Amino acid sequence: MGKLGVIGGMGPEATAFFYEEVIAHTDASRDQEHLDMVIISQASMPDRTHAILTGNDTRLLEVMREDAQALETLGCTCIAIPCNTSHYFYDQIQSFTSVPVIHMPREAVSEAVRTRGARRIGVMGTDGTVQSGIYARACEAAGVECVVPSPARQADVMSIIYENVKAGHPADMRKFALVVDELVRRGCDAIILACTELSVVRRRQGAPETCLDAMDVLVREAIVRSGKLYRP
Amino acid sequence: MGKLGVIGGMGPEATAFFYEEVIAHTDASRDQEHLDMVIISQASMPDRTHAILTGNDTRLLEVMREDAQALETLGCTCIAIPCNTSHYFYDQIQSFTSVPVIHMPREAVSEAVRTRGARRIGVMGTDGTVQSGIYARACEAAGVECVVPSPARQADVMSIIYENVKAGHPADMRKFALVVDELVRRGCDAIILACTELSVVRRRQGAPETCLDAMDVLVREAIVRSGKLYRP
Repeated sequence: MGKLGVIGGMGPEATAFFYEEVIAHTDASRDQEHLDMVIISQASMPDRTHAILTGNDTRLLEVMREDAQALETLGCTCIAIPCNTSHYFYDQIQSFTSVPVIHMPREAVSEAVRTRGARRIGVMGTDGTVQSGIYARACEAAGVECVVPSPARQADVMSIIYENVKAGHPADMRKFALVVDELVRRGCDAIILACTELSVVRRRQGAPETCLDAMDVLVREAIVRSGKLYRP
Repeated sequence: MGKLGVIGGMGPEATAFFYEEVIAHTDASRDQEHLDMVIISQASMPDRTHAILTGNDTRLLEVMREDAQALETLGCTCIAIPCNTSHYFYDQIQSFTSVPVIHMPREAVSEAVRTRGARRIGVMGTDGTVQSGIYARACEAAGVECVVPSPARQADVMSIIYENVKAGHPADMRKFALVVDELVRRGCDAIILACTELSVVRRRQGAPETCLDAMDVLVREAIVRSGKLYRP
């Protein structure tokens, strides 16, 4: 049976949410039927968006290396990173360990194409996720278009993530609706919630049907790849 | 700054709840102000009540040793175990590592005496917690009386923990009220919820004022001993 490793704490709230979702979606009726997991909740990890936008990523990669190697040493058989932005560093992180790391953005795009027949995918995430093109590359590889919010709407997304959720407040759902409306108006047939803070918003305050949560896909992959049955 | 180690997964739901509570009660407004934590969610840990009642605890102690030592190796400065029953093995677990392990039952009793002036404390927990006298010893050391439910009411507590919460169902609050009423009738001036599954019940479905949650006390101790500010 597999053991799931988690490089988490980015932010801690999102990792706790991921942990709860893994438990809720594992087909189990007693403790011992659940997954064994090791969660490194590295709240002190340098800010990912800042590292990407400034190129100042040495310390961040050092910590990622330590965490990945610790999870390998502890016998983890699969690694999940419940933070979309961090996947900018996916190739480096995977190079630090022989344990397979789930690529959340690729899995989310693949899910949007497979289950919704999406051809034009909108992405809501941090500036780091959007500007670095993590999702644009995943979409390109899948042969679909990627649409990101206009600068004004992207500022709304950042405000929801940093000023609302990460600071422990409810999301401004008026801003959330403005972003969704713009992406739909620009022809998106699916919108990926590409930031774990937005998954928290969706759970607590809801989100339109057109939104597909990258976290949901990560949860399912983490359970299935660890040899457990996923309960939708 | 401290790093909190958690021996968890007993059950996973309770550990996820503990993790969320630590985040919610840490005075922080951005990721980097939160605690660094390592959570070993060892769902496959043998059942604690079973180990205590049968004396068959070799495998359980082996796993506890591995987890405690892994947390020490990863630089944890304090260890929390969000499972009351496991504290039956407290002395052994503490002997496996030089990192201080928080004693949840002692801290909970001390809190009941300090903040409520309790002289007669009722305890709701698993058969393992109740029959092993973990709380009875903590009460004795604090110079107060310990009252446990009658066999019929203790069966109600076990049913709430195993058939309801651990199996993913809501608690039968009629049974919960029967237990509380009995303990109050027998003169208890405080009732300690001494099982993390009951903390989950309290959060989701509520509990009378007379109930004091051992988990709350563990959360505060974990935050404060890791050098962060506790936010009530």
